[in-house]
Amino acid sequence: MERKSEKNEAKGKGGNKPSLPEKPEAFLQEESVPNFSLLPKTVKRRVYALKRLQLQSANIEAKFYDEVHELERKYATLYNPIFDKRREIVSGAIEPTDEECEWQSARGDEELAEDLQKKAALEEKQADSAAAVDPKGIPEFWLTIFKHVDVLSEMLQEHDEPILKHLQDITVKFSEPGQPMSFTLEFLFEPNSYFSNTVLTKVYKMKSEPDAADPFSFEGPEIVDCDGCKIDWHKGKDVTVRVIKKKQKHKGRGTIRMVTKEISQDSFFNFFNPVKATPDGVDEDLDFTLATDFETGHYFRERIIPRAVLYFTGEALEDDESFEEEDLEEGEEEDLDEEGEEEDEGDDGPMTDPPPAECKQQ
Amino acid sequence: MERKSEKNEAKGKGGNKPSLPEKPEAFLQEESVPNFSLLPKTVKRRVYALKRLQLQSANIEAKFYDEVHELERKYATLYNPIFDKRREIVSGAIEPTDEECEWQSARGDEELAEDLQKKAALEEKQADSAAAVDPKGIPEFWLTIFKHVDVLSEMLQEHDEPILKHLQDITVKFSEPGQPMSFTLEFLFEPNSYFSNTVLTKVYKMKSEPDAADPFSFEGPEIVDCDGCKIDWHKGKDVTVRVIKKKQKHKGRGTIRMVTKEISQDSFFNFFNPVKATPDGVDEDLDFTLATDFETGHYFRERIIPRAVLYFTGEALEDDESFEEEDLEEGEEEDLDEEGEEEDEGDDGPMTDPPPAECKQQ
Repeated sequence: MERKSEKNEAKGKGGNKPSLPEKPEAFLQEESVPNFSLLPKTVKRRVYALKRLQLQSANIEAKFYDEVHELERKYATLYNPIFDKRREIVSGAIEPTDEECEWQSARGDEELAEDLQKKAALEEKQADSAAAVDPKGIPEFWLTIFKHVDVLSEMLQEHDEPILKHLQDITVKFSEPGQPMSFTLEFLFEPNSYFSNTVLTKVYKMKSEPDAADPFSFEGPEIVDCDGCKIDWHKGKDVTVRVIKKKQKHKGRGTIRMVTKEISQDSFFNFFNPVKATPDGVDEDLDFTLATDFETGHYFRERIIPRAVLYFTGEALEDDESFEEEDLEEGEEEDLDEEGEEEDEGDDGPMTDPPPAECKQQ
Repeated sequence: MERKSEKNEAKGKGGNKPSLPEKPEAFLQEESVPNFSLLPKTVKRRVYALKRLQLQSANIEAKFYDEVHELERKYATLYNPIFDKRREIVSGAIEPTDEECEWQSARGDEELAEDLQKKAALEEKQADSAAAVDPKGIPEFWLTIFKHVDVLSEMLQEHDEPILKHLQDITVKFSEPGQPMSFTLEFLFEPNSYFSNTVLTKVYKMKSEPDAADPFSFEGPEIVDCDGCKIDWHKGKDVTVRVIKKKQKHKGRGTIRMVTKEISQDSFFNFFNPVKATPDGVDEDLDFTLATDFETGHYFRERIIPRAVLYFTGEALEDDESFEEEDLEEGEEEDLDEEGEEEDEGDDGPMTDPPPAECKQQ
């Protein structure tokens, strides 16, 4: 399948997939397998021997992932100078040189048809005059990414937007060798009127060895827990709560007074106050929320942080999203039709755009 | 999400994802992105600077994957003694010791209720007497796997089954360092009456660096091509063709003669005679077939070879398949209902069984 979005989740970087803390029945009893019980005893015991060998494999696999994690730590030091420079350009701390800004498709503009050129020039002029002063860096860089990426825009509330305009960078830090495996997302904010923190953190703890009770489900490190941080909101600025006024009647005297009460409300900033897993998964609703949180943490780490600019421009968005936003130029549709002529009538679906192997994350 | 089948494809082993040779428009022009053209010129050039940095990241990423591939080669030597032993047990070359066959759930049998014990004992007795003689090794080990795994059972034809009973092992070999990245699947057969080969091979060639024309689509090594092998079928045994007889009339003389003609037919063994990619993807039907082949090769390498016994017993089958085959014990359904009581009415789907993040491969 071309352009598999499946690949997006399979970057091989240690396979650090999010998972819920507890798994239902992943470890099927072979007795439940059709015909297993019909095997002669002698064959069954050979199968058990193979299963013992499989346990050895799982333990070797765990060591493999430890080494991949070490590799990731090593490569993080290679990526960091690039990410530092990105942050400085985004914040306006440094202005890139002309050479650093040279880009193929910017040069390609000259090849555009004359009328398109004029249109582009006009738009550019309008844009320039709209920004009366030259803006600093790339304004709303991270907020724009939040708006472009479904999984984030679903968490984003209107009251979050002015705060996220102050978000300067998101980074990932890996646990030190010898420590339990984890990674920390750091959200760096410029000084703002909402809270006094300059960095908000979210730690994702991972489990990187086969579970004794369920060794065959091991597929590499999994996120098993996470911790947020305390946000020191300035008075009246906490967007994760809403203040409501309530009449309260004194039982004895019958007098009425007004009391204020804080109730929680939706906000991206609830991301820093995650729910906790319930023992034995008694609360499925809660566990589902947590699983979604793990997905989001994984997505920040694997996709958004490493290639933020592509989410800003939209180039990294999932196929289906990109297709929606992409306007075909006139004439292009006819070309596509010509290609379509070769198709059988009897095929079981369009060949051009097979469904992505991975369902869209929510 | 728990028990994500997504994880199945994301083992981190170099992210060697299958892909079609050519990609349509994965490299979106930022001009097609909403509002990009409205950005002031100064901001646009900073975005271009970030994109140049992103190219540097992609090149570092390619080196990361090279190192992961080296790790895989290193670990292959650790897995090989285990796989060798598996092959010897499957073929009956060695008989595992009692200690090597000790398995928890085999011991757990004693805890089964008495009537279930009796039933199991009876079934075992029947099975033992059915196998009049003690079978060698684990009969039809690989054929059973082919039948259990959807992606393989779809290729499997009735005429393939007697041949696959002779399949003794499937192994994967990685390319040597310094060579273009590839892996070779080897299918080892015991001597049989169908063909003279003792091993059938399929080589998958990979591309492990960013494409100059489309660097941002790089996600790690991808399968880009494959080669099969010639099968030396014994006379009349080639199941990939069907012989038909046809009447042929001589144009001049009007005499009629019978000619035989071979036409191709469905068979798993067509796997060793793959189609070739068409330049520029002119034949979408063909390219779709090829993409499916790449998926299959990837699946053999990443899933079936490393954990064959779990596909034999069924434990490694995808969630939905396992669920179909799993019979709930009486009373269990009621327990599930009780848990369901906590659910809101207004939720947007069942919480118990979120859809797997990855759609089932075909």
